[in-house]
Amino acid sequence: MNASELQAYLLESIPLARAMQIEVVEVSDAAVTVRAPIEPNINQHNTVFGGSAAALSFLAGWSLVHVRLLQEGIRSHVVLRSSRIDYEAPMTGSFSARAQLAEGADWAHFTSTLARRGRARIAIAAILESEGRVGARMSGEFAALG
Amino acid sequence: MNASELQAYLLESIPLARAMQIEVVEVSDAAVTVRAPIEPNINQHNTVFGGSAAALSFLAGWSLVHVRLLQEGIRSHVVLRSSRIDYEAPMTGSFSARAQLAEGADWAHFTSTLARRGRARIAIAAILESEGRVGARMSGEFAALG
Repeated sequence: MNASELQAYLLESIPLARAMQIEVVEVSDAAVTVRAPIEPNINQHNTVFGGSAAALSFLAGWSLVHVRLLQEGIRSHVVLRSSRIDYEAPMTGSFSARAQLAEGADWAHFTSTLARRGRARIAIAAILESEGRVGARMSGEFAALG
Repeated sequence: MNASELQAYLLESIPLARAMQIEVVEVSDAAVTVRAPIEPNINQHNTVFGGSAAALSFLAGWSLVHVRLLQEGIRSHVVLRSSRIDYEAPMTGSFSARAQLAEGADWAHFTSTLARRGRARIAIAAILESEGRVGARMSGEFAALG
């Protein structure tokens, strides 16, 4: 699944992704990066709404797990279990979320547990940036089911 | 600021709130409750998108702090600093977020610190429900500036 296929899938299946006008800019084994313009995601302070930032980071994180599982031929439901977001600086332009495995996350252990037990969890970290500056950091745990 | 005034303000100033079709259903000193239908907030599993749930809880939490400050005649920018969300069960219908002060949060200390230092932080807890069942819990820290 390449960037344009992933983008089409997210836009088709998640109305909020359409409202946010998201764009998938990078898909690899190591990372997924999703971007959005500020206009549909602005808040009352003329910066990026924290809910839009959270949503963008969840889409990037979910996509990383989903795409890597698909590449290994594993069809599974991937769902968000928990997330922590720290907002470091207001974002005032188009913004991106780049998701990678969290430090210490063990992909091989994740997929072997999933195969053995039918469910497993993996930790993802995403960095949100705007205009070359970090705006927020998200750490989340996703579960793969079935 | 009553529920319909708050709703008009959020819909006017935050495009994502419009896309989510949020509705303010309760505004009091103790709590703010915001609700949204599932259709514009659905995900690829036909449940509420985690990003929509996060956004709704942030709107409820932000509103509680904003409205209480206004009632005390304090004009201040309120911004989200950090959030933690635990997703407990998929939400499959219209959903709500009810925000209150977190246990142990001291409103009087918050406003006195804000008056003295020009900035202060307060912890908020929100419960997300759908069809009478808890779907997620959010705890967040909001900062009031100036």
